Amino acid sequence: MENNNGSKSWAFRGNEKLNIDTTDTIGGTLYWLRHTISNNEDERPLIPFSNGDPAIFPCFRTSLRAETAVVRALQSAEFNTYCPFFGTLPARRAVAEYLSRDLPYKLSPDDAYMTLGCTQAIEVIVTVLASPGANILLPKPGFPTFEARCSFSNLEFRHFDLLPDKGWEMDLDAIEALADEDTVAIVIINPGSPCGVVFTYDHLKKVAELAKKLGILVISDEVYEHLTFGDNPFIRMATFGSIVPVVTLGSLSKRWAVPAWRMGWLAICDPTGALRNSGITEQIMACLSLYSDPATFIQAALPEILLDTEDEFFANRLDLLREGANVLFERMKEIPCIRCDRKPEGAIFAMAELNLSQLEDIEDDVDFCFKLAKEESVLMVPGVVVGVKNWLRFCFAIEPSALEDGITRLKAFCQRHAKRQ
Amino acid sequence: MENNNGSKSWAFRGNEKLNIDTTDTIGGTLYWLRHTISNNEDERPLIPFSNGDPAIFPCFRTSLRAETAVVRALQSAEFNTYCPFFGTLPARRAVAEYLSRDLPYKLSPDDAYMTLGCTQAIEVIVTVLASPGANILLPKPGFPTFEARCSFSNLEFRHFDLLPDKGWEMDLDAIEALADEDTVAIVIINPGSPCGVVFTYDHLKKVAELAKKLGILVISDEVYEHLTFGDNPFIRMATFGSIVPVVTLGSLSKRWAVPAWRMGWLAICDPTGALRNSGITEQIMACLSLYSDPATFIQAALPEILLDTEDEFFANRLDLLREGANVLFERMKEIPCIRCDRKPEGAIFAMAELNLSQLEDIEDDVDFCFKLAKEESVLMVPGVVVGVKNWLRFCFAIEPSALEDGITRLKAFCQRHAKRQ
Repeated sequence: MENNNGSKSWAFRGNEKLNIDTTDTIGGTLYWLRHTISNNEDERPLIPFSNGDPAIFPCFRTSLRAETAVVRALQSAEFNTYCPFFGTLPARRAVAEYLSRDLPYKLSPDDAYMTLGCTQAIEVIVTVLASPGANILLPKPGFPTFEARCSFSNLEFRHFDLLPDKGWEMDLDAIEALADEDTVAIVIINPGSPCGVVFTYDHLKKVAELAKKLGILVISDEVYEHLTFGDNPFIRMATFGSIVPVVTLGSLSKRWAVPAWRMGWLAICDPTGALRNSGITEQIMACLSLYSDPATFIQAALPEILLDTEDEFFANRLDLLREGANVLFERMKEIPCIRCDRKPEGAIFAMAELNLSQLEDIEDDVDFCFKLAKEESVLMVPGVVVGVKNWLRFCFAIEPSALEDGITRLKAFCQRHAKRQ
Repeated sequence: MENNNGSKSWAFRGNEKLNIDTTDTIGGTLYWLRHTISNNEDERPLIPFSNGDPAIFPCFRTSLRAETAVVRALQSAEFNTYCPFFGTLPARRAVAEYLSRDLPYKLSPDDAYMTLGCTQAIEVIVTVLASPGANILLPKPGFPTFEARCSFSNLEFRHFDLLPDKGWEMDLDAIEALADEDTVAIVIINPGSPCGVVFTYDHLKKVAELAKKLGILVISDEVYEHLTFGDNPFIRMATFGSIVPVVTLGSLSKRWAVPAWRMGWLAICDPTGALRNSGITEQIMACLSLYSDPATFIQAALPEILLDTEDEFFANRLDLLREGANVLFERMKEIPCIRCDRKPEGAIFAMAELNLSQLEDIEDDVDFCFKLAKEESVLMVPGVVVGVKNWLRFCFAIEPSALEDGITRLKAFCQRHAKRQ
């Protein structure tokens, strides 16, 4: 085909699989929300109930010891080099030791693989499990990066509900009903994003036993590990590794509030060897050999960060989260059209149900969030992005005065849009 | 299927596409080479002709200004947060300005996307171009990450030769013969890895005109940008952006010797808008929305690094490379079974041909490299990994005394294995 320049028409074309709607992801939704309000003339500060990124507030600044460890590694100039594609040995050893503190058995450095945040850990495990015809069970509400990655890798996903009336426990009957012989794994997120649930020992054990019965792997996204401030302690899913093999995903991003450092891990918690015998660990290695690696100098700081961060830093962090959850839960009662029945006990999010019948001129949760952003400079993620339409996802890990201010604005917004009786 | 524990057999299975041979990649080959010699009782230091990672030598330490800029950004605690998935605006602006210095037109920040090193830039562009039935033209010898990524994304690749007898220029006739209507792009690497060639203005212009004739995109991997020390200056392929759209890939890894920082970019150099009209830029955005991002605090340091690094640092770096290339080229003449006809003029590698007929008990280039590693603790990449069997890839960006020592050991090895006359 010749065009009028005497050259062929351009032949390049893109990958249609990438004609995705970026608003299906949290990052994309936030991008469009921010884009929408970029011309707001509001002089008030923006309130990010949306982000899951407390690092923007000075009160959530990371541990000075962690920061110093990274600076020291960088200034040594010894860690500007490439590293093995699955991570450095000291970093892998530190992850194994750190996870083993909470387990009834010891992981070895060979069980741990360093990844670019938990995002790449999700990418790796989804890619590895995406064999033709396979399917995977995902929680709803959940974390949409799992869905986006599965779609991209042609791995069918099936949703099981977290039950709001049962404190957001997993619907075990639904899991059993959904699984078939092509089901390869179930994903759990604990402490739970976005519901703020912390699963009990007994509930997790039931999941392990059910997964064993179904013959499926458990993928435990523990990126919010140890961020618990209610009655239930944090229990690692891999506690039940002798019942069912568990792949544990984690990162520094949440507990240390440094998502920008892109330092995560994937650990094979498989004391019986069931997973190793399947060849999946070799495929994890192969997958990692194709990808970019986490920064070597941050890996060099990892032993100190994971094993020696001061208790005071963690305690202060939990106080802030507990207080944020309390304030959110109590003040939400002032807003009739938003219902939050359960105070979050872990992680940094709460889910609240939107009662549209009490509002006029609000179409749905997306409309609510875009109008709220425009009118009040308050950002929030519509529930539909995390799997439940007409709910709202609140991050309460924000600076206390911003939290109060945000709820006051939200209340004003809801009053302004309330249906007249 | 029940097993004797009363549970189903484990149903998880992996993705067969990942049953790849990790020795097909440079990282994998080096892993196995190092693994092989891990029990060597050689007390001499290991000589890495293999790595392409001069950062391990103090003389190649990165610019103090760059290091300080990163430390300052980290210690400000302002950049521990997530960033937009395509990069921060100041970082994108810096990349646009930095690239524009060498171009006859100006790029805008919207043309630049931040990536996790050049590795992720390759991943993104290959993923975007991998539409069903499409094919891409890759140089041979080349950089095997392109082949690995294409295989993984089901993008057919076809090799055109770089011609050793023509100073490693691209075989333009072969390119024209290989392309068909499903060809979407051609990859060039300039300055050239692994051959050390720096393509001339005229040669690049011919490539641009040929690509226009064929209607295909040019992907220019310029990760070794400005590392030139021979007669030919570095010319950006995007100089010819008004003839053919160019996607430029780059990173801090080589010019600043900091591969561990994982800071790269992909830039759309498309002054006529041909590429933007194809929808490919939206797909690049979609692809990036799925991936992990480069560290925000390193992005924060990027303007200072890219735009203000001291000239002295670059000059010193080029002196070291020029001297390394000279020493390698001259001393290689002492080794009859290895032929290096052309002194490298850019980047950090040279290719040399292995004459097996002069050696006994050496099967091929892989056998040569493994035996050399075992006997002399000298690491080198077999040519087959970069596409040409029975050649060797030498990195000369190593500390001068290590370079001399390595060649002396290589010479001893070749003498010991020489065929008796």
